[in-house]
Amino acid sequence: MGAAFRLLPIPSADPTVAQAARAYQLELTKPARSLGRLEDLAVAYSASRGTLPSARPARRALALFAGDHGVAAEGVSAYPSSVTAAMMANVMAGGAAVSVLARRTGVEIIAVDVGVADALEAVPSSPVVPLRRAKIRTGTDNFRHRPAMSRAEAEAALAVGATIADELHAGGCELAGVGEIGIANTTSAAALVCVFAEARPEDVCGRGTGIDDAGLARKIAVVGDALGRHAPRRDDPLGALAAVGGLELAAMTGFLLRAAAHRLPVVLDGFLANAAALAACAFAPTVVDHLIASHLSAERGARIALERLGLPPLLSLDLRLGEGTGALLAMELVDAAVALQCEMATFASAGVAKKLD
Amino acid sequence: MGAAFRLLPIPSADPTVAQAARAYQLELTKPARSLGRLEDLAVAYSASRGTLPSARPARRALALFAGDHGVAAEGVSAYPSSVTAAMMANVMAGGAAVSVLARRTGVEIIAVDVGVADALEAVPSSPVVPLRRAKIRTGTDNFRHRPAMSRAEAEAALAVGATIADELHAGGCELAGVGEIGIANTTSAAALVCVFAEARPEDVCGRGTGIDDAGLARKIAVVGDALGRHAPRRDDPLGALAAVGGLELAAMTGFLLRAAAHRLPVVLDGFLANAAALAACAFAPTVVDHLIASHLSAERGARIALERLGLPPLLSLDLRLGEGTGALLAMELVDAAVALQCEMATFASAGVAKKLD
Repeated sequence: MGAAFRLLPIPSADPTVAQAARAYQLELTKPARSLGRLEDLAVAYSASRGTLPSARPARRALALFAGDHGVAAEGVSAYPSSVTAAMMANVMAGGAAVSVLARRTGVEIIAVDVGVADALEAVPSSPVVPLRRAKIRTGTDNFRHRPAMSRAEAEAALAVGATIADELHAGGCELAGVGEIGIANTTSAAALVCVFAEARPEDVCGRGTGIDDAGLARKIAVVGDALGRHAPRRDDPLGALAAVGGLELAAMTGFLLRAAAHRLPVVLDGFLANAAALAACAFAPTVVDHLIASHLSAERGARIALERLGLPPLLSLDLRLGEGTGALLAMELVDAAVALQCEMATFASAGVAKKLD
Repeated sequence: MGAAFRLLPIPSADPTVAQAARAYQLELTKPARSLGRLEDLAVAYSASRGTLPSARPARRALALFAGDHGVAAEGVSAYPSSVTAAMMANVMAGGAAVSVLARRTGVEIIAVDVGVADALEAVPSSPVVPLRRAKIRTGTDNFRHRPAMSRAEAEAALAVGATIADELHAGGCELAGVGEIGIANTTSAAALVCVFAEARPEDVCGRGTGIDDAGLARKIAVVGDALGRHAPRRDDPLGALAAVGGLELAAMTGFLLRAAAHRLPVVLDGFLANAAALAACAFAPTVVDHLIASHLSAERGARIALERLGLPPLLSLDLRLGEGTGALLAMELVDAAVALQCEMATFASAGVAKKLD
């Protein structure tokens, strides 16, 4: 079943570092505040790290968690569950969207099978993308009728995510992203957002991979049924993850909690990562100080989730693919923001006049 | 004075290629339309090129035009004109924001002095960033009282821009950006936007590098005076550029016109590039098929300019630095979009089920 999960203390953003970063931004050869949100990003990154970075993030990695969902049996996705395994194989072979984006920017992908239904025996670990085999079970149960998993299984999934964060931190990773693969997982994420953002299924459920009106109505009904049956509570995040979560969603939650404990800033992908972030904040609110929202997903509930998190998205490109694609795009902006803070000349060093008079 | 400018025929976006790109996007291993605006970008890029690209843009370059403005004497900028030359030196030394962003993504900068007041004798051409010395005159006249330059000078500036586009095209550049450096040039750009977007100075003038309320009031008055004095016309773009334009703005306009003639897609930086794009479209409306708006600048008139162009910005990060910084950030998105179209596996090649049933 795997190790128990330990919730380590999570520091807040460092206000002294934030202030120093803000002050240093005013020394750089540009009009004050002319880099807008890139300045905010560099300041937030610095405050999360707890120190002014001296260089761009040395190592950047995307943790990509995969799992299957028993609730797929309810006809809530446009794709069959077998696509989860096929997409993992596609990631290993370098043909997935996330593969292309990671390759062009030199970000490592750590692909983690935490609960894919298929054994993935035919999927070799690639020299470029390691496949971490950490399967807790072959997909969740259909949470319309039964809890998705046991509390012990949810805890084991948290521990898988935490281990990945530990390893990245130990390996010198200074900027992470988090994404997922899992057919039907927007249904699980919608249920979690209902719990943690206190929202209604009809305001949170979206079309996921592209279901029609009837599919959307089924999805809303399924989420409503599950919330009624299990009565998951905001003050029991482990119970909520067990009841209506997913193995990859719980692993993402554990990843976020442990990354934050290490002061490792994490760029969230879309709706699924938003849901995991809400779960993580229910365990420990200071997690949010170490999170960056990449984009506003086209999935309906994303806005509610991000508003509850208080994280403004950097991009709004109508993405709804998942896999960490949005996270990778936004990691470029974070990297650029930190590079600007670290590498730009100052007015003093460049001999540029600071203002008129 | 430089060569005369020739307006070459400018092709439209190729509708057959656009259709083929849209169809191919549906074959890629992702839910239909799940890459949102990145799909639109790849399709627009393909249609501009007139062919489905087989690989990411091989060579990417940012054309950075610099010039000074006589209207700076009216107190419309927070910085003295000497900062234009100092910032060019900063770009050559690698300490400017644009230098940092270009370095981290491997985009070349072509810096062009088309009208800096300083001789730039102390600024060496760097091995990394060539300094193109194409000065037409040492800054413009103060257009509150006199035309900024003669029609012949404006035409020579157009020709400088066109020559840079010719060279990039001949050198295999497949994606360009355009930016500028020039103290007080948002005043000139505001005047041009008033002409080409038929807007009022008070709706277009912004705070530029950070002027106070009194400075903004002066700027609005100066633009109003200039429009009254010179009566620049939308159907005489050369005359408008001569009356209230700038040397770098005219060069950017020539660059856009010639790049479009070569089917070389150009990512616009902020408000200045938006103004040049409006001028270019007044010469030849099909230019717009080859333009990509990087971001919505924080400068007040940017929204009006982009709406008139009909170009939705990709980013909205409250940038107002110029130098091509926004263009470089968005060139990453274009590059990513094209890479995704070229490198993702198809459902057939990856053996992934396309839909349920």
